[in-house]
Amino acid sequence: MAEVRVIEIHESITAANDLAADMIREQLKEQGTLFLNVMSGPGSGKTTTLSAVINALKGEFRIGEMDVDIESSIDAGKVADATGVETLQIHNGGLCHIDADMVSRALLEYDTEGLDLLILENIGNLVCPAEFDTGAHKRIMLLSVPEGDDKPLKYPLMFSTSDVVLINKIDTMDYFDFSMEKVRERILSLNPKAKIFPISAKTGEGLPEVLDWIRGEIAALKN
Amino acid sequence: MAEVRVIEIHESITAANDLAADMIREQLKEQGTLFLNVMSGPGSGKTTTLSAVINALKGEFRIGEMDVDIESSIDAGKVADATGVETLQIHNGGLCHIDADMVSRALLEYDTEGLDLLILENIGNLVCPAEFDTGAHKRIMLLSVPEGDDKPLKYPLMFSTSDVVLINKIDTMDYFDFSMEKVRERILSLNPKAKIFPISAKTGEGLPEVLDWIRGEIAALKN
Repeated sequence: MAEVRVIEIHESITAANDLAADMIREQLKEQGTLFLNVMSGPGSGKTTTLSAVINALKGEFRIGEMDVDIESSIDAGKVADATGVETLQIHNGGLCHIDADMVSRALLEYDTEGLDLLILENIGNLVCPAEFDTGAHKRIMLLSVPEGDDKPLKYPLMFSTSDVVLINKIDTMDYFDFSMEKVRERILSLNPKAKIFPISAKTGEGLPEVLDWIRGEIAALKN
Repeated sequence: MAEVRVIEIHESITAANDLAADMIREQLKEQGTLFLNVMSGPGSGKTTTLSAVINALKGEFRIGEMDVDIESSIDAGKVADATGVETLQIHNGGLCHIDADMVSRALLEYDTEGLDLLILENIGNLVCPAEFDTGAHKRIMLLSVPEGDDKPLKYPLMFSTSDVVLINKIDTMDYFDFSMEKVRERILSLNPKAKIFPISAKTGEGLPEVLDWIRGEIAALKN
């Protein structure tokens, strides 16, 4: 291998929103609403996956969804169209994340009383969203097969702070050089407790296991 | 369409690095080095594309490459292995971008004198890198087919500030619902001067046009 020189250029990142996040988490727990923060890079299939999940669960639970984007309302519109649930589009004006303070402001506009499940579709980004506690009870991330099996090595914080990793677009495994075994190893070495579900939001493969996990988390929160 | 409510949550972003960027640009122009800033979301194929471009041009030009990642050195290693050129891996310690100040510090470690072409592989992210002038003469972005043709609507700043948009992984067009016509319209409505090249870094399709564009830019810089 040719020589690679490395220089470290670090700056500190302060995330002083832990208190706000804890307040959101506690309030939603008290009212029996499981709050999930769903993250991924652009184009991993968050919107399609969430539409499928909501459609599968909306007969059992009352569900709400909030969607973060820079300035478009495409995703909230897609989810609302596909599922009929009320969605809130949050425009963050060019930031690469949403923090707990922003979620608090969104919750003032969105009545979550009586919801069993509130889903936050974060902005498409594998860096910043991992750094900010949004007040969610659990963090779910998606990695899609076309993105490559090296992504845990390159975006370790996202993988190490997620409770669940969905490996999406497994229907395209034949067309990409992607090792499910390697990606599992890489995720688990960063985060031994991560639950990993290979899925295809398009074909529905693997989704039943994800639905069962969500059902279990809703039940656990309410007990 | 179901009703979608929208709230605006903006914060200001200050990028006070324009002077540093201009100094880099001017210095590299004086020494005859074209500086390209290459951006995309994670897994769009920057590393593979750049390796192919460097291999195709290294007989004609002296080329250097710098690679930005959070903490891994995978990409610089891949490019160095694939091409034999000297690469510099910059670790930005968890930030979602690289700015001109960080590039200046990197250039102190990397001798660019005599290079015809210096390529910066930015961190995989469609939000933050668009906001920071790195001092590059031209900005190139990649969008890959699996990410979807709606991305210009969702990440408009990236598309509107790029001089060139490479649509990569066109060899997988049959497996994804991606309209080249729609993506072209969306890019050009944001950025009428954008040059759009459909390519497959894997098969080499479309790369000759990209190489010709780079040759033209190197010639223009030196005149």
